[in-house]
Amino acid sequence: MKAKYVQLPEMMHAVRQHEAGGKLMIESIPVPKPGPGEVLVKMAAAPINPSDLALLQGNYLARNYPFIPGLEGSGVVIRSGGGLLSRLRVRKRVACSPNPEGDGTWAQYMKTSVMRTVPLPSGVGSEQGAMMLVNPMTTMAFIQIALKGGHKAMVNNAAASALGKMLIRLTNQHRIPLINIVRKKEQVPELKSEGATYVLNSRDESFANDLQKLSVDLGATLFLDAVTGKQTSILLKAAPRGSTLLAYARLSGDPISVDPGILIKEDKQIEGFQLGNWLHTKSILYKLRFIRRVKKQLSASLTSHINRSMSLEEVEEAISIYRENMSAGKIILLPEKSSIKDLSD
Amino acid sequence: MKAKYVQLPEMMHAVRQHEAGGKLMIESIPVPKPGPGEVLVKMAAAPINPSDLALLQGNYLARNYPFIPGLEGSGVVIRSGGGLLSRLRVRKRVACSPNPEGDGTWAQYMKTSVMRTVPLPSGVGSEQGAMMLVNPMTTMAFIQIALKGGHKAMVNNAAASALGKMLIRLTNQHRIPLINIVRKKEQVPELKSEGATYVLNSRDESFANDLQKLSVDLGATLFLDAVTGKQTSILLKAAPRGSTLLAYARLSGDPISVDPGILIKEDKQIEGFQLGNWLHTKSILYKLRFIRRVKKQLSASLTSHINRSMSLEEVEEAISIYRENMSAGKIILLPEKSSIKDLSD
Repeated sequence: MKAKYVQLPEMMHAVRQHEAGGKLMIESIPVPKPGPGEVLVKMAAAPINPSDLALLQGNYLARNYPFIPGLEGSGVVIRSGGGLLSRLRVRKRVACSPNPEGDGTWAQYMKTSVMRTVPLPSGVGSEQGAMMLVNPMTTMAFIQIALKGGHKAMVNNAAASALGKMLIRLTNQHRIPLINIVRKKEQVPELKSEGATYVLNSRDESFANDLQKLSVDLGATLFLDAVTGKQTSILLKAAPRGSTLLAYARLSGDPISVDPGILIKEDKQIEGFQLGNWLHTKSILYKLRFIRRVKKQLSASLTSHINRSMSLEEVEEAISIYRENMSAGKIILLPEKSSIKDLSD
Repeated sequence: MKAKYVQLPEMMHAVRQHEAGGKLMIESIPVPKPGPGEVLVKMAAAPINPSDLALLQGNYLARNYPFIPGLEGSGVVIRSGGGLLSRLRVRKRVACSPNPEGDGTWAQYMKTSVMRTVPLPSGVGSEQGAMMLVNPMTTMAFIQIALKGGHKAMVNNAAASALGKMLIRLTNQHRIPLINIVRKKEQVPELKSEGATYVLNSRDESFANDLQKLSVDLGATLFLDAVTGKQTSILLKAAPRGSTLLAYARLSGDPISVDPGILIKEDKQIEGFQLGNWLHTKSILYKLRFIRRVKKQLSASLTSHINRSMSLEEVEEAISIYRENMSAGKIILLPEKSSIKDLSD
């Protein structure tokens, strides 16, 4: 670590997709060069999130093909493309996310705007640090939306996911009642042991009635819907007058069908939520305060359970393990595990 | 007019419905007695609006059956139920609307809260005055929503309706570009002669493309959707990123089907709009200022074309004439034309 700059290879391994829904290829491509205001991150770890799956189906954010997936990760900044902030970040361990429409974290190196990197607290390892942006910031955003919108309580229907469990801990801290919706019997006691008070199974016959009664009793007027499709109209019917439903993922893959009469008569609304879009509407000051709050929570309530760590080359297997049972924990890709030596030597 | 109070009959004629979607009956029932803070209005005129049709189908507002339909009208206040404001309104000509869940205007008399009556300017006759609340206030609300939400332009898909024509005049005054959507060829020149600049026919093959291009060019990010059903997803696809769709009626009668990916990826939202719900969220001061603005506009831009005036007994025929061709103009019910003498003598 005496030399200011480590030697960079010319080529790197990266996961790439050539069309929406297409197969993932492991390709050898040039290491990107950061421009002014950008940094180059040597990636250490990157998770697979539901938003990555939506992105791979072409359903989440605009991308130019071929592109490198991966919406968050962690690593070390090893080059600055110029600018004071970028230079100051060199040799720092960071959590990072790609530029809008830019190549992602499932690669040995990623270039991104310095504004999309957050220095990691020293107590946070690479794997937890790799998951610092999407889920912790999303759950914190939900808390902010609930507080600002005067929602007394909320409902989340992907309760057994990593995000769902994080939300249980965070709403407990903020004393905001949370109705958790799962679809397997065994997840009810599991979530209760994680600190959940209200857990409903969407496969119970009395589900719609129970949800309606409970959400009216608690004043739950913010519905977080990661499933969408048929469940959206069930949630909207059960929701108290004046409720807002945030569609934040599309795990069912089905379209939403809803009676407009419910929206008009009962003053309800459906909004799309995507973290980047939401943050985009905030001031720089708000963003800085928001990130500071997320960092504060990180070593305590905002960690995620990790199921398995795998190499970049195992990406297709990693995705199918994750897809099969998302509630088992996160799958982390470790680019350093890859055959980097083949290329850099 | 020397006696302070005219003699009141005990019974009156009223239109009543006994179940959602049921037949309309002409019934002889007791004249209602206003309570404190309420007034009794001797009805002069009441229009048939799309919202009345939705209400009769049970799709709009909560009602206890049997109930008297009619969401607005005009008349003279002939009794006060007590309270200073109510007493001051006696003998005044007013526009009026029913109490929440209360009996409506399609009757010889209606009792309602004094807050739901607005004195008529002397230049405004009973028939125009009867249409002063729903359409003028709704179009004015749309203008306020556009201004407050920073929407540069808007889209309305029931452009040939009375409300649509009012909106053309009002957006011209406020210099807010309006994209009008019609579904008959002959309505294109008709609306242009009413002052519309942009008119699209939803039956043209190039409709979706034209709408997308035009709404991006004009920055139209507020979509007013009275049709809903299949058209909602066409509108949402064409809408620029970040757009809001207000569902304010359900003329198609079909459910909305929408790809959640569009909402999430492009930061779009669907909101139900109902005038009463919208006003309910505003302060008293806002409401008073708002009503003053509507009254100011009333003799100029906020009048509606009247197709025909009919008696209460002709209500079923009146509804079918209206339903057949809403763009031909309003149908007004005139309770004074009824066989009131049979009852009061």
